[in-house]
Amino acid sequence: MSDLRIAVLGVGVMGADHVARITARISGARVAVVNDYFTEKAEQIAAEIPGCRAVADPLDAIADSEVDAVLLATPGPTHEKQLLACLEHRRPVLCEKPLTTDISTSLEIVRREAELGVPLIQVGFMRRFDHEYARLKALLDGGELGVPLVMHCVHRNPAVPPSFDSSMIVRDSLVHEVDVTRFLFGEEITQVQIIKPAANPKAPEGLQDPQIAVFTTDSGKHVDVEVFVTTGVAYEVRTEVVGELGSALIGLDVGLVRKSAPGTWGGQITPGFRERFGQAYDTEVQRWVDAVRTGAQTGSYIDGPSAWDGYASTAVCEAGVKSLQSGRAERVELAERA
Amino acid sequence: MSDLRIAVLGVGVMGADHVARITARISGARVAVVNDYFTEKAEQIAAEIPGCRAVADPLDAIADSEVDAVLLATPGPTHEKQLLACLEHRRPVLCEKPLTTDISTSLEIVRREAELGVPLIQVGFMRRFDHEYARLKALLDGGELGVPLVMHCVHRNPAVPPSFDSSMIVRDSLVHEVDVTRFLFGEEITQVQIIKPAANPKAPEGLQDPQIAVFTTDSGKHVDVEVFVTTGVAYEVRTEVVGELGSALIGLDVGLVRKSAPGTWGGQITPGFRERFGQAYDTEVQRWVDAVRTGAQTGSYIDGPSAWDGYASTAVCEAGVKSLQSGRAERVELAERA
Amino acid sequence: MSDLRIAVLGVGVMGADHVARITARISGARVAVVNDYFTEKAEQIAAEIPGCRAVADPLDAIADSEVDAVLLATPGPTHEKQLLACLEHRRPVLCEKPLTTDISTSLEIVRREAELGVPLIQVGFMRRFDHEYARLKALLDGGELGVPLVMHCVHRNPAVPPSFDSSMIVRDSLVHEVDVTRFLFGEEITQVQIIKPAANPKAPEGLQDPQIAVFTTDSGKHVDVEVFVTTGVAYEVRTEVVGELGSALIGLDVGLVRKSAPGTWGGQITPGFRERFGQAYDTEVQRWVDAVRTGAQTGSYIDGPSAWDGYASTAVCEAGVKSLQSGRAERVELAERA
Amino acid sequence: MSDLRIAVLGVGVMGADHVARITARISGARVAVVNDYFTEKAEQIAAEIPGCRAVADPLDAIADSEVDAVLLATPGPTHEKQLLACLEHRRPVLCEKPLTTDISTSLEIVRREAELGVPLIQVGFMRRFDHEYARLKALLDGGELGVPLVMHCVHRNPAVPPSFDSSMIVRDSLVHEVDVTRFLFGEEITQVQIIKPAANPKAPEGLQDPQIAVFTTDSGKHVDVEVFVTTGVAYEVRTEVVGELGSALIGLDVGLVRKSAPGTWGGQITPGFRERFGQAYDTEVQRWVDAVRTGAQTGSYIDGPSAWDGYASTAVCEAGVKSLQSGRAERVELAERA
Repeated sequence: MSDLRIAVLGVGVMGADHVARITARISGARVAVVNDYFTEKAEQIAAEIPGCRAVADPLDAIADSEVDAVLLATPGPTHEKQLLACLEHRRPVLCEKPLTTDISTSLEIVRREAELGVPLIQVGFMRRFDHEYARLKALLDGGELGVPLVMHCVHRNPAVPPSFDSSMIVRDSLVHEVDVTRFLFGEEITQVQIIKPAANPKAPEGLQDPQIAVFTTDSGKHVDVEVFVTTGVAYEVRTEVVGELGSALIGLDVGLVRKSAPGTWGGQITPGFRERFGQAYDTEVQRWVDAVRTGAQTGSYIDGPSAWDGYASTAVCEAGVKSLQSGRAERVELAERA
Repeated sequence: MSDLRIAVLGVGVMGADHVARITARISGARVAVVNDYFTEKAEQIAAEIPGCRAVADPLDAIADSEVDAVLLATPGPTHEKQLLACLEHRRPVLCEKPLTTDISTSLEIVRREAELGVPLIQVGFMRRFDHEYARLKALLDGGELGVPLVMHCVHRNPAVPPSFDSSMIVRDSLVHEVDVTRFLFGEEITQVQIIKPAANPKAPEGLQDPQIAVFTTDSGKHVDVEVFVTTGVAYEVRTEVVGELGSALIGLDVGLVRKSAPGTWGGQITPGFRERFGQAYDTEVQRWVDAVRTGAQTGSYIDGPSAWDGYASTAVCEAGVKSLQSGRAERVELAERA
Repeated sequence: MSDLRIAVLGVGVMGADHVARITARISGARVAVVNDYFTEKAEQIAAEIPGCRAVADPLDAIADSEVDAVLLATPGPTHEKQLLACLEHRRPVLCEKPLTTDISTSLEIVRREAELGVPLIQVGFMRRFDHEYARLKALLDGGELGVPLVMHCVHRNPAVPPSFDSSMIVRDSLVHEVDVTRFLFGEEITQVQIIKPAANPKAPEGLQDPQIAVFTTDSGKHVDVEVFVTTGVAYEVRTEVVGELGSALIGLDVGLVRKSAPGTWGGQITPGFRERFGQAYDTEVQRWVDAVRTGAQTGSYIDGPSAWDGYASTAVCEAGVKSLQSGRAERVELAERA
Repeated sequence: MSDLRIAVLGVGVMGADHVARITARISGARVAVVNDYFTEKAEQIAAEIPGCRAVADPLDAIADSEVDAVLLATPGPTHEKQLLACLEHRRPVLCEKPLTTDISTSLEIVRREAELGVPLIQVGFMRRFDHEYARLKALLDGGELGVPLVMHCVHRNPAVPPSFDSSMIVRDSLVHEVDVTRFLFGEEITQVQIIKPAANPKAPEGLQDPQIAVFTTDSGKHVDVEVFVTTGVAYEVRTEVVGELGSALIGLDVGLVRKSAPGTWGGQITPGFRERFGQAYDTEVQRWVDAVRTGAQTGSYIDGPSAWDGYASTAVCEAGVKSLQSGRAERVELAERA
């Protein structure tokens, strides 16, 4: 099967990240078209990627006959028109949040897609793909916490751009916990309250920060969220679900921590080398592939342990096996390195 | 640039993992040829991968004109002949450990490659690519622990195959800490001692397990390693370096833990969303690409949050912004879901 | 100075604990008088303690000329009358919470004591004396978190007695976080809201459990508290303060964890043996004192390492010093143990 | 029963600590006699403690008819003579390590005590009384780790006095792990090896620091100990036991961490308020007793929450109960504070 040809619309911070990701780390896809309001930016990026063109008009990019799918990283207000174009041309689309910037246009998009009868639009709530959230979801779905009752969330950023205002804390930050709540509990949120504590003295004048959001869901579950975007510390995202049979906590920099009857806390140890070192294997092979592909220019076809490293470790192990038999310490004798 | 065409030699557990990795997760490469002593196994795998052939003889696979690089996952005793063939045909090769099974042939390989004057052979010590080892290496290279003095390692497996014997604990398990020592300290190991505690009652008759290895390096650093391969618990790999200015510990299921003057311990919080959720973004996009590519068969072009999810989250945020202004709890009103 | 003679009023669970504590672990005090509504219970306890009498009427116990101070562990509704008696007889009193069961009588007690012009009444909010809360308070008072902004609390019990009702969750459980808030922030609470999530299916019929309390303080700080008294898990008390300069968390079974700019988390290592093993020394000496005091009956005057342990450890160290010099392993030769 | 009258011999750092401990925190005992080579030091301490005398000769102190028991904190070389005097006068004695400074005199002490037929001598290995070691011992004795196989210890000090030499690292530091090994495993150590890594550049000239000790026990268990006394970091004492059924680790600043099949790690949550806040209750009552005893001088009989604190918390709870019923936020109205 040939690679999926993707048009990336919008190549600001998020869009440029996606272009790099698809080009360097994603298998079976390539960026065929890029588009941006600032056409020079798009042309510059296109020039760096083999087989990639810049297209000036986003709707042309969507309609392009050599595009199989669309990744939408444009500003929210342009989403409605672009999503409708995707539906019209039946282009699968991964749309960065928000779907659109207001309820009525969002609902309109939902209805148009339903009329087509085929799911084409995916929204970019990426936390659902995070391994800790995935483990928490599996724990809940497996019934290991019993009925979930309460959720506590913390969402902290060290800083935000000067343009960030109080309602953006809700729309751009809190929206992630909105999706996390709906994803983990599988229910709709029926009521929201934003509590406004005295503001951080270090926050810009007029910014209501921190904010405490309180959600109630369909079945009466309680969720509270601290959103605090000027902490000056780091990026901290923490979620704790408290259920009938125990609680589980992710995001405390120590993996998922679970509490269960009768009085234990803890996590899981990786069961085998695949789980522990899977990332290392992926990185190893990707970096080797990259080194080999550029070897003719660089004069080296490796990016990692060399034959000498293989030789030296064999020599040490041989001395080790000798010691295993002799019970004594054994010298390791290495040849001179050329 | 076209994809790198890789021949994978040996498709047992490790080789098959590598085939799957290159096919599904590695960008810029594909498996063009597979080979195995059990030819049916190779043919079966080749049949599942577009554009992949099985080649019966490993030396033919290496020489194949449509192969750019070789990944060697064959048994150790065959490595010498296959590596020499790779050097002869100037094929870059990623060779699973061991380089070869004895010192003299390993040294011969090192010399032949040196004669060619270009690094072609990379050995598969994948821990160097693990993010925790990478952080530890960076800490050491940055001088943050001062002169390293002592290292303590633990390497535990829940179980090993029945064929595993006492010397394989050295050659197949301990060899990783041999490489870790050489990698982290950048020195050769000059002396090895294997201490043999009373054996685990649960270990197979005759297996010396656990073993304690003691290494001394060029400059007199001390390394001890507990290798224990029948713990019945899980896969645990832990490394602690103690230096002039403090110590750092990885593999305790809590990330890197560092101790420094004057009396603090702790780790680093992820500084931003890229570090915290980079894996989630990669997974999101890869799974979306996969869903789009198979959409014609499955009837759905998404594998994640839907347009409805986008709509519902917009509705909750809108109520949140209203509450931010009103100071009251606000209802969320959703349309009927079709 | 002679020992303080204490009258303990009420010898239910808490009162009996206090009697045992004063008798076995508190220096400079003894229980001189006990009283309980169930006189037999008081007599039974008095019989076990040298120099202790049971007194039938609580007011007589307070007035007793051989009582220096009073510890009040009687039911809340009796506190008012007993505290007034303490004030009248100028008896210092440690009063288990609540001071009294309603606001007006509490205020009356405050006023009467103020008229005397000397503080005589201490209330039993013991968390202020917990080492983790003490460290958190010190962190706040030292300005290390900057202005505190938000506090999140969790207060979980595995189970409660059948008589426990929804308002007791407020009065008997939440009251601790009321005091923690006032203690840590040094301000009064000006507003309270109790949020009622859907109840735990395992909670007794009619019990509103869990409850979420939201406090606002004088200066607008926000505090939320999850009180959940039928978790079936364990006793979990957690408090996190989020301030202008970082956050600190206690009660996560890992000591105080602190987050600070620029992106670090961690705790403090004990600086010396006194901090690390102070409890061990206290326990060692107390158990030795107890063993010596009962030695005539038991025939042994020790409760810990024996002379043989001293001999054997000396022998090992001597072999160690020999090895330090020889560089070889050295045998330890012990005499036959009689 | 009257208080045990203790003679403390030697009031240097350790002895003075013990005097303070017995006076302020130990129930049922008091310091009746102090003695020191520096008589002025002993007299100064005696003057601060009611009913305490300084006695110039240590043997007189032991023989004193108003002494019930002896705490020996004198230098090691004087222990032999003083212990023999204790045995002669049948004085129970708590002897700080070492028992004596060489094997033959230690063995002589053991034999003399055995002739008396009653255990009188306890040696001050206080780690046996530490709650983490006690939990580890209980785990081992309960068979929860199966047969113990290997133990790893770390013993680090930030610094040592200038007089500290390489053999003192064995005799004064390592001796604790000698006792820990014998205590936890209940076996004698049969072989010791001291490994000497390249020294810490920050250690004083000539000091072999760090040292690695390797012990073998009767049944062939392996113990390794890193002793490192010039880390510049903090006081770190860590012990990990690896057994047939899992491992357990104490001293990592996160409580006891245990690993068990099938692949879990974690600790225990405190089961109830006694375990969680027992120390807080003790501290509360001790500080209250101290405040009452000195109240006549200070003008206040409390050292903790006041009646006002009791009143204010009652007021908040009352508002809370109101909110529980109304479902709304409720104001807290406090009287003016006098």
